[in-house]
Amino acid sequence: MADNEASPNPVEDDVVDPWNVVSKSVKGVDYDKLIKRFGSQKIEVALLERMEMLTGKPPHHLLKRGVFFSQRDLSQVLDLYEKGKPFFLYTGRGPSSEAMHLGHLIPFIITKYLQDTFNVPLVIQLTDDEKFLWKDLTVEEAHRLAYENAKDIIALGFDVNKTFIFSDIDYIGSSSAFYMNMLRIQRCVTYNQVKGIFGFGDSDCIGKISFPAIQAAPSFSSSFPHIFGGRKDIPCLIPCAIDQDPYFRMTRDVAPRLGYPKPALIHSQFFPALQGAQTKMSASDPNSSIFLTDSDKQVKTKINKYAYSGGGSSVEEHRKTGGNCDVDIAYQYLTFFLEDDEKLQQLKQDYSSGKLLTGELKKVLIEILQPLIKQHKERRAAVTDETVKEYMTPRKLAFDY
Amino acid sequence: MADNEASPNPVEDDVVDPWNVVSKSVKGVDYDKLIKRFGSQKIEVALLERMEMLTGKPPHHLLKRGVFFSQRDLSQVLDLYEKGKPFFLYTGRGPSSEAMHLGHLIPFIITKYLQDTFNVPLVIQLTDDEKFLWKDLTVEEAHRLAYENAKDIIALGFDVNKTFIFSDIDYIGSSSAFYMNMLRIQRCVTYNQVKGIFGFGDSDCIGKISFPAIQAAPSFSSSFPHIFGGRKDIPCLIPCAIDQDPYFRMTRDVAPRLGYPKPALIHSQFFPALQGAQTKMSASDPNSSIFLTDSDKQVKTKINKYAYSGGGSSVEEHRKTGGNCDVDIAYQYLTFFLEDDEKLQQLKQDYSSGKLLTGELKKVLIEILQPLIKQHKERRAAVTDETVKEYMTPRKLAFDY
Repeated sequence: MADNEASPNPVEDDVVDPWNVVSKSVKGVDYDKLIKRFGSQKIEVALLERMEMLTGKPPHHLLKRGVFFSQRDLSQVLDLYEKGKPFFLYTGRGPSSEAMHLGHLIPFIITKYLQDTFNVPLVIQLTDDEKFLWKDLTVEEAHRLAYENAKDIIALGFDVNKTFIFSDIDYIGSSSAFYMNMLRIQRCVTYNQVKGIFGFGDSDCIGKISFPAIQAAPSFSSSFPHIFGGRKDIPCLIPCAIDQDPYFRMTRDVAPRLGYPKPALIHSQFFPALQGAQTKMSASDPNSSIFLTDSDKQVKTKINKYAYSGGGSSVEEHRKTGGNCDVDIAYQYLTFFLEDDEKLQQLKQDYSSGKLLTGELKKVLIEILQPLIKQHKERRAAVTDETVKEYMTPRKLAFDY
Repeated sequence: MADNEASPNPVEDDVVDPWNVVSKSVKGVDYDKLIKRFGSQKIEVALLERMEMLTGKPPHHLLKRGVFFSQRDLSQVLDLYEKGKPFFLYTGRGPSSEAMHLGHLIPFIITKYLQDTFNVPLVIQLTDDEKFLWKDLTVEEAHRLAYENAKDIIALGFDVNKTFIFSDIDYIGSSSAFYMNMLRIQRCVTYNQVKGIFGFGDSDCIGKISFPAIQAAPSFSSSFPHIFGGRKDIPCLIPCAIDQDPYFRMTRDVAPRLGYPKPALIHSQFFPALQGAQTKMSASDPNSSIFLTDSDKQVKTKINKYAYSGGGSSVEEHRKTGGNCDVDIAYQYLTFFLEDDEKLQQLKQDYSSGKLLTGELKKVLIEILQPLIKQHKERRAAVTDETVKEYMTPRKLAFDY
């Protein structure tokens, strides 16, 4: 790989690729090590300060708290913003199940913040083709799930005049510009390369082998002529979980050869499973995660019953030694969803000292998540098929180029 | 491979795959051997007699003379015709150069005969994406060549109400149905399989590796909902040169797993290069072939100067020992383009006996090809961009399903 972006070496390390995340430690993946292995940069405080200075808005708590911890070329995106030059946002989701879970929200939450802050177009790719190739789904079912997931994404409040959501199956079948970029990327990448980057093997189907080009293509503005009027020089910023980085290392390698700008990235840590940070949440294990469809009661039961506790083994012990926030899932979830910094700091102090019990900490989380999920369900229910169609129709957005 | 269709073993044999044809003998490829290796069937006289009985039309001279020599499931196509059940024709071309040569006409000539005889829909795939992936062309240039080649194809007189010509770049970018079939095929075929069938290697780009699914997809009626109204059970018959068979062996292997009928095929021998039957004609060597753009003078010069002669080394010797029609290129070309069986038979007799000299035989060929090419150029010049657009617009054809 060019760009000093070394390919990851999973031996004796955490395993992090788009299909597997396995950490060696109960604290989860060693993210500092990952930055070195992937060749990305840490999101330094100075960079966040510059962002605040330029935009006049405080950084999002997911940035401030280091949930988004790694970046590539973020400062160049800020340069563009400073000069009044255009860029766009690109994120996505693989629609493998109807019910999205809390962890799936993270890239979209930061993306919404970035869209609101920078006032830029946003493209959201739903890789129904990928899910068909990887999962035991019919192509029709994968396509249907893309539309179901689109409703959840729309419920987060993206501006319809600035956002294009697309299913690959729909959009590839309606845009030669996108397909032409797929081809250009596919010609630049060999089997050997995808083998090295993604660990594909000789028994993998040819659909998987060429898929990375499809996730790469939305990084280039020329893939969306209806939005960018044929301009191919507008760079993008991709918020995603760090496991998606291999796709974009490949994209960044290919971009200069096609005369396109490299995508910039910000990478998030993984949202931990209820059972602890050693695995990534799985949409297929209902008790590993809290779904956006869960009832108040389910939220309460799951957190009380399954959320891994960093507290003492008895009240007495807990009062004496205190809880361990580094592994406590209730506390971890609060860092994602409790916006109030002071309150979070107080909870950490009280829990670590033993003043606050596990059940009390869990109660705080439950009282945040229950209304959050309830509101999400209400907003999602209000999303009509008409609205979905509006977001998913290729069209000009509220920007001129 | 299923279906008793053994994969070819090129060792110590003629090399025949979509990118290379090299024969060991001056007579050209050993086609009887190829039938065994590929696991296809010979087109027997009895089959042609049945076709004549069913259609009331004599078989085309390219069938009668064994230029189309091999088939898969042709009798099943005749069964359908006998029962009044639908099928369709599918053929194609890789548009790698502006000027098509005489050899490129062969599949289209037989396809036109079959369309006229059976009165069925025809889809013609122009694989501009393939040419982009394999050749040193931009994607725009490959796409432009598809349109140039479409004009030559249209000039052959296909019925616009029964014929859909498409560029992959256009049609994939306008049909989710086609893309969905590409995905379904791509999921059924592994890297190992395309390595075995096509000889792809680890340094090949991922576009090449997944391409075979794109040439397979038009075999299935569900790839063309505008023509077949969503029916996925209508089989096709593919006329093609035998070097394209690997794509369709793969397709026939995949079809039952997708619940689609296997495509039937008829295979042609190769149209020999002017220099002799040991190589396939190359569009990139102007003196290896006669182009559809050549002037009367070029046609005459090329045949007189370059056409490999099976005649004696002197007039005296020729009168004594006669000419060898098996290797004589002028005679070979006449088997493709001289329709009159009796006249061809007479020429063979006279040339073999030494009565007819090489120059005289070449003169007969020149007098057939000059008007043929002149008429083609005139008909091609009359094809407007409007007409091309008509053939290449996805639309209902003159058939109801």
